[in-house]
Amino acid sequence: MPTVTMIGGGQLARMTHQAAIALGQCLRVLAAGDTDPAAQVSADVVLGSHDDLSDLRRAAEGSTALTFDHEGVPLEHLQALEADGVAVRPPSKALHFAQDKLAMRGRVTELGLPAPDFADLTDEREQARERLIAFGERNGWSIVLKAIRGGYDGRGVWLLDDRYDALAVFDAQHGNGVGLIAEQKVAMARELSAMVARSPFGQGAAWPVVETVQRKGQCAVVIAPAPGLSDDVAEQAQQMALRLASALGVVGVMAMELFETTEGDLLVNELAMRPHNSGHWTMDGAVTSQFEQHLRAVLDYPLGDTAARTAVTVMANILGADEAPTMSMDERLHHLMARMPDAKVHLYGKGERPDRKIGHVNIVGTDKDSVAEVRERAERAAHWMSHAEWTDGWDPHS
Amino acid sequence: MPTVTMIGGGQLARMTHQAAIALGQCLRVLAAGDTDPAAQVSADVVLGSHDDLSDLRRAAEGSTALTFDHEGVPLEHLQALEADGVAVRPPSKALHFAQDKLAMRGRVTELGLPAPDFADLTDEREQARERLIAFGERNGWSIVLKAIRGGYDGRGVWLLDDRYDALAVFDAQHGNGVGLIAEQKVAMARELSAMVARSPFGQGAAWPVVETVQRKGQCAVVIAPAPGLSDDVAEQAQQMALRLASALGVVGVMAMELFETTEGDLLVNELAMRPHNSGHWTMDGAVTSQFEQHLRAVLDYPLGDTAARTAVTVMANILGADEAPTMSMDERLHHLMARMPDAKVHLYGKGERPDRKIGHVNIVGTDKDSVAEVRERAERAAHWMSHAEWTDGWDPHS
Repeated sequence: MPTVTMIGGGQLARMTHQAAIALGQCLRVLAAGDTDPAAQVSADVVLGSHDDLSDLRRAAEGSTALTFDHEGVPLEHLQALEADGVAVRPPSKALHFAQDKLAMRGRVTELGLPAPDFADLTDEREQARERLIAFGERNGWSIVLKAIRGGYDGRGVWLLDDRYDALAVFDAQHGNGVGLIAEQKVAMARELSAMVARSPFGQGAAWPVVETVQRKGQCAVVIAPAPGLSDDVAEQAQQMALRLASALGVVGVMAMELFETTEGDLLVNELAMRPHNSGHWTMDGAVTSQFEQHLRAVLDYPLGDTAARTAVTVMANILGADEAPTMSMDERLHHLMARMPDAKVHLYGKGERPDRKIGHVNIVGTDKDSVAEVRERAERAAHWMSHAEWTDGWDPHS
Repeated sequence: MPTVTMIGGGQLARMTHQAAIALGQCLRVLAAGDTDPAAQVSADVVLGSHDDLSDLRRAAEGSTALTFDHEGVPLEHLQALEADGVAVRPPSKALHFAQDKLAMRGRVTELGLPAPDFADLTDEREQARERLIAFGERNGWSIVLKAIRGGYDGRGVWLLDDRYDALAVFDAQHGNGVGLIAEQKVAMARELSAMVARSPFGQGAAWPVVETVQRKGQCAVVIAPAPGLSDDVAEQAQQMALRLASALGVVGVMAMELFETTEGDLLVNELAMRPHNSGHWTMDGAVTSQFEQHLRAVLDYPLGDTAARTAVTVMANILGADEAPTMSMDERLHHLMARMPDAKVHLYGKGERPDRKIGHVNIVGTDKDSVAEVRERAERAAHWMSHAEWTDGWDPHS
């Protein structure tokens, strides 16, 4: 059976390894250390850095395909690997658009896909500042500044409301050499995510479109499928994601994050060319999980069925609390299992730090459950795991 | 998080490791070699023999619980580990009944559970032979001889129809020092399996009772739940299994294999105190898989929900063909995925040898599917994976 190498030893690699086992494989991971989430569980770990070409070459050696659990590998290294004959998936020419928000925005516009208005602020300081001022005035200073590279989970994103703050962020970041774009802040009803997969053969597959709930700039809750989304709009989102994946030459899974505006329109927000937090619900709630699908895609296997198993699944992230509870994680897990025997818990083997993603809970609804009930249970479970505190005030001793 | 050690590096350990990952753990396995199915995928492998006490001690060191993927560990070693303070689960006093069919038959009878008539043939040769003859005559020589220890997947079991063959098997085996029992061959309608789990705390949980289809003495297909089984009889089977697990002090999952007679009665056939082939359907078809449940039980976590996700799931084993197909396993997998995007394939990383269990396929039915359709699809998929041959004659090139 083939060997897939994943660059990065985080939770996405950890869960991809789980999926690899069923396919008769063992995922090889390039991890920074042997306590990385994936390095803890895979038998095939290469220790090294994703920044180091010789480490990347060691990890790629003898593997059928090379893929990623993050977007941080320097593009020139990937091009060097491609020149070596390594099957880099997604290929560097596609990954470029996941690494560079300016390039992505440009390509999305070229393709005629709806997206927020934006401005390129990569010029020399005075010109860029002028362009920002013009863009800010045009949008009533309700804008977002974004680092073109390296941002994730709220890092590298500044939500702004006035000229003063916007210019302060610009001056500080531009002064530090951070390339920025400005985007219009959208009057949005909610955020959605359309996850798709694409194989080198060109096969595409789309999961149901989900609603994502963000807190502190990162994904907290995912409701699958997005409640109340019309079939037409859902299909439009899926078509947009499939079209973009095809146009960019993506191989593997891709998450297209979308804004649904208060007018009911869709706008493309962000792209990720790897398994994504908005797809964790598929592990228990869909016929094929995003992790198995990613392996299928990068190996050019036919793609799996993306149907949801039931009418609703809700995923809630377990985030590190500001202060770790005195009750151990193991004990919290005991209590959760006692109270919710149907909760599907996924822990990443990570230490608890404030707001760090350390696991997630899926609740797969049955036909009797309302979306609100399933969501309340998923959030209650995740909050318990984070804080050792029941949001409904339940006390088994009272 | 805790560490569980599993003795044995086969597919059951491999799939238990998959489940351990979600619980924030890495399964430690004691494997004979680094190409064993579980050793291929776990980061925590101890190489050694389940027959060697010092190897067992090395594997147990620092682990929260010690458990098994087979029944072959010498009881005296387990007792020594227990004396060391190791949490052996199931404990030696329970495992004894899974290792020794004579002890199991005796205990089942004592508990008043229905079981086939049997005779103990462990006496000195002449007495045992006389007892066999009396038992054979009483049952019209429609009997089964079974090795008391070490039999599985049809090995150590002889289905007999006449005196001559029965005595020949007896003479050969008894002469080799193999302890035997004789059992009445039952006029059965079909075989069932009742899987349960039990924790040290005493919590029990039962999955829906399934029908198992045996071929060449080993499990080939499992239909979950058993079609047409009345709620009363299903509950009776679950109660029997829970009662037996409790009476024997089982910790972990236990499969109670049953005969359903042509009269509609249930008789206890075999016991296994570990994840079992008849529970593989739970990986995709139940809220909690037998592998996660086994971990929950041996760690004394509260047990998970055992409900089936849909009205029917069928599991079919992928067995090595008499002659391995020229088409590679990888290529067969491609074709299966192309034809059945909803098939859930589980491969064990084992070489192909005739009738060897090398994987399984689960088909989780939807509301629209009949049991017959789901079964046909599961068997078609598994046969394809074994033989590179479509049982429905399908030819994509014609």
